Amino acid sequence: MADSSDFVGADSTSLPPIEYAGRVEAVRHSLAERYGLEAVVATDPVTLRWVTGFTGSTGWLVIDANNAVLGVDARYRERARDDVERAGLITQVEVAESAPASSRRDEIAAALGESTRCGARAGAMTHAEWSSFSEVVHLVAVDGLFEDLRRAKDAGELARVGRAAQIAEACLSAALGLIDVGTSEMELRIELEYQMRRRGADDPAYPTIVASGPLNSARPHHGAGNRRFEEGDLVVIDIGALVDGYRSDMTRTFVIGAPTPQITERYEVVLAAQAAGLGVIGPGVTARSIDARCRQIITEAGFGDDYLHIAGHGVGLEIHELPFHSPRSDDVLRVGDVVTVEPGVYRVGLGGIRIEDLVAVTEHGYVPLTSFPKDSPCLPSLPTT
Amino acid sequence: MADSSDFVGADSTSLPPIEYAGRVEAVRHSLAERYGLEAVVATDPVTLRWVTGFTGSTGWLVIDANNAVLGVDARYRERARDDVERAGLITQVEVAESAPASSRRDEIAAALGESTRCGARAGAMTHAEWSSFSEVVHLVAVDGLFEDLRRAKDAGELARVGRAAQIAEACLSAALGLIDVGTSEMELRIELEYQMRRRGADDPAYPTIVASGPLNSARPHHGAGNRRFEEGDLVVIDIGALVDGYRSDMTRTFVIGAPTPQITERYEVVLAAQAAGLGVIGPGVTARSIDARCRQIITEAGFGDDYLHIAGHGVGLEIHELPFHSPRSDDVLRVGDVVTVEPGVYRVGLGGIRIEDLVAVTEHGYVPLTSFPKDSPCLPSLPTT
Repeated sequence: MADSSDFVGADSTSLPPIEYAGRVEAVRHSLAERYGLEAVVATDPVTLRWVTGFTGSTGWLVIDANNAVLGVDARYRERARDDVERAGLITQVEVAESAPASSRRDEIAAALGESTRCGARAGAMTHAEWSSFSEVVHLVAVDGLFEDLRRAKDAGELARVGRAAQIAEACLSAALGLIDVGTSEMELRIELEYQMRRRGADDPAYPTIVASGPLNSARPHHGAGNRRFEEGDLVVIDIGALVDGYRSDMTRTFVIGAPTPQITERYEVVLAAQAAGLGVIGPGVTARSIDARCRQIITEAGFGDDYLHIAGHGVGLEIHELPFHSPRSDDVLRVGDVVTVEPGVYRVGLGGIRIEDLVAVTEHGYVPLTSFPKDSPCLPSLPTT
Repeated sequence: MADSSDFVGADSTSLPPIEYAGRVEAVRHSLAERYGLEAVVATDPVTLRWVTGFTGSTGWLVIDANNAVLGVDARYRERARDDVERAGLITQVEVAESAPASSRRDEIAAALGESTRCGARAGAMTHAEWSSFSEVVHLVAVDGLFEDLRRAKDAGELARVGRAAQIAEACLSAALGLIDVGTSEMELRIELEYQMRRRGADDPAYPTIVASGPLNSARPHHGAGNRRFEEGDLVVIDIGALVDGYRSDMTRTFVIGAPTPQITERYEVVLAAQAAGLGVIGPGVTARSIDARCRQIITEAGFGDDYLHIAGHGVGLEIHELPFHSPRSDDVLRVGDVVTVEPGVYRVGLGGIRIEDLVAVTEHGYVPLTSFPKDSPCLPSLPTT
């Protein structure tokens, strides 16, 4: 059971604050510029949190030309006020008490005042809610607006992602001894997630992937099962932590015992592909060029058919957010983007290899947010943390 | 770190199977009877799982008069076939390969064939998806249809809920030593959730609530924070486990040290209220009468203003599902319903007391699914499990 002496505990108070002050105005500006609208309504927790700092799971937000109103039910009243105050928005965002969900339509109508047209996220609102709100205001889909604004992470956000990445790495270091014959995937996952929580993560950023052996590790989206590690296994570990709403994301691949020449060859190709992908990162670069560079290296090495996914994605309040490094993407990297670079090759019968790091785009390139050793698939010797 | 010898591991294979065989036909019957429809489309994971056994998070399901088709993308192809086979539905449900989400509309149109009208869950589908599908078929909201069918739990489902409840209780027993001065709410939550996973739960059923002291325990929806237990604290622990998709739900309230007469009085009132609520449970009884009985006892004792929520709800694939024991509910209990009974009183400055058990409605009343001691708020002496 717990030994409180080594329990770190969540401590976001030691992190620099997130700059919420300009966000309401940025939403207004973007609404007007892109859609010719003066008002927007949102009900999804990610949007509410990004704009107001509200950490609850249920509520609504209305922004129009003059006001910003956050509606929460009685359960969240105190938390919402604390959150909005912590965000420094007490003078900008009014916290209104909301009745149960059935009254939302009328509350939103009241908050909207004379606005007759209003933006909303069609992809982040149920049809039931959209229909109900449409009885009182003409809704216009503004999908992409908040997702786009959320891309530029400020210092406070970067500090949270970075703290999350540090916690995940420390847990992986502490668990290296378990990456051995006989441990099951699920046992390792449970220990990694337990350690993340004990070291101050609010939760894992996503269900930790521990995928082992010739079949499971060859499936990019295998979770963690009851299979026990065997000599010669490839073990793909995809791990991230959640700190004060923000997520990290990293993957390392290890081999149990000595790598075969075949594994070493593939590992080096993936590592070179990742280096090539990282090498192009900087503001103004297309996200698809990152994927193209990774794909080129892997294809030239003859493993093109084994590269089963895209080279990465943005990370922040959501684990997958803009930009996406897809061959079909038109996204262009900007300063403040936090993105993964994660090429991989997968072959049933042999196993999978993926190497993923998280970086923040800067004016002159990027800074890495993850730094766990990756030179070889052999287990690194690390001081116990 | 992990000691594999005491790791139980998820093991749903030892549980009786869930009877999926009649579900597609039950959906068709209900669609025709209640809505005059022949077809329905769903994209939410709970509906997909209930009908087909599919355990993935993304896909679509179309049922019409002749066919049932589950569409999943390449990542889930093998899992979907395994799940459908495990559910015994290989001859009833076709697994189709789906392209990325952008092609869903056309795939669903193809699966629907000549159906021109089709039901869907407006409250469990985004407006973006609803709009897209509406380009190829006239959608009709059928909210309530699946929720209603899901109420009657079969033996396999009851076994999973029961296993989940047993695991949660065993973890609470094992953690009693931590309910003492100096432990923080979050430390206890982390240990409880770690133990649940080690004992074979797939996850907690919901974020475990550990709410302590005169302020936190007085908030029914407080989660778990960094507050450390002090002498005299009330500690409300609301804990459930997740086993093979199904959830359990139980609350116990303890006092650190000896209870004051005031706490003892309130505890006994809540216990009596819960007994009264349980006492009326049986098929044909209105859900609101359960709340009414609890409320009557608490009000007669003079604590009516401190009873801040309703007496309970159904539990299954979702932690909150039909029926709801609200004063405004028209739900009538049926055999197979799994419901909580959970009155509570909350007073800032003193703290909160909630006692919650989970029961399955049977022909002659109910069977309890939770059995943790609750005679008094003093910590029970239990053999270590």
